Amino acid sequence: MKQVVLVDMDGVLADVYRQFIRLENELNGIKIDYDSLNGIIEEQAFPNFESIVNGKDFFRTAPLMAGSVEGLKYLNDKYTVYIVSSATEFPNSLIEKQQWLNEHFPFISWRQMIFCGSKRPITGDIMIDDHPFNLNNFEGKKIIFTQPHNFFVENEEYMRVNNWTEITKLL
Amino acid sequence: MKQVVLVDMDGVLADVYRQFIRLENELNGIKIDYDSLNGIIEEQAFPNFESIVNGKDFFRTAPLMAGSVEGLKYLNDKYTVYIVSSATEFPNSLIEKQQWLNEHFPFISWRQMIFCGSKRPITGDIMIDDHPFNLNNFEGKKIIFTQPHNFFVENEEYMRVNNWTEITKLL
Repeated sequence: MKQVVLVDMDGVLADVYRQFIRLENELNGIKIDYDSLNGIIEEQAFPNFESIVNGKDFFRTAPLMAGSVEGLKYLNDKYTVYIVSSATEFPNSLIEKQQWLNEHFPFISWRQMIFCGSKRPITGDIMIDDHPFNLNNFEGKKIIFTQPHNFFVENEEYMRVNNWTEITKLL
Repeated sequence: MKQVVLVDMDGVLADVYRQFIRLENELNGIKIDYDSLNGIIEEQAFPNFESIVNGKDFFRTAPLMAGSVEGLKYLNDKYTVYIVSSATEFPNSLIEKQQWLNEHFPFISWRQMIFCGSKRPITGDIMIDDHPFNLNNFEGKKIIFTQPHNFFVENEEYMRVNNWTEITKLL
């Protein structure tokens, strides 16, 4: 039986920091340097976080994380993959997230998608996520995907990956 | 620590058979008697299943299962409750289901909602569901909620409840 891998969307498949940076610039004329954001959560990094994240198409047009299509294809051939995304906090994101997955990852079926509020009751062998609070409630192997907000997080229970190439080497 | 109860939506909180019966009558002039449907799945019971289930507002305007509001309130006070609903097969249902929950069950927060394709990776102590294929993949206590399609299902692993009053007596 294949091992079960839970893959997060925002900050793992979707490059939400770059989406915020683009929209702060386009909508509000605010220029923010990606490399200046280490250790800063989105809510603090982006002055217009609330209006941007609630805006139409924020999730629908998010850029892909580099290498995520090839990387997820590799995982999907080798493991039982579920995409597990915190989504119910932003109800309008639900359909956008599913459409975004359908567009960029057509090999992922609707049977593999989970949109939730808390990931606590969702189990598997391996979790790839950028948020410590998701990893800390998970009982399998915990892989933290580097994002600015977790840049300084150290936890010996995690294995850290910085990009999708490192995921495919590790798994 | 409270036990975790996973509660299904369609056929447990939402009375989807009665929604199909109403819409077959209103849209297509077809009258169907609820009591004639025992042992028959929705796809076979309703001639216009596909167009009705994909129609706008099918999930948004579904009638409540009798006693479900009081019953879920009772469970929510006593247990850690997650609402777990198969939804990604019908992407337009996602927002409708969340709005429906918000309207009828305002004491259920977005943190307690899970919309998925498969319930296989979702764990808990107790599952209340009308579909054997969901119960059979679950490792905790399995409670089958009587619906026409499961009327003749017998499985000694299940506890059968016929309505929400029976749930609150049992749990």
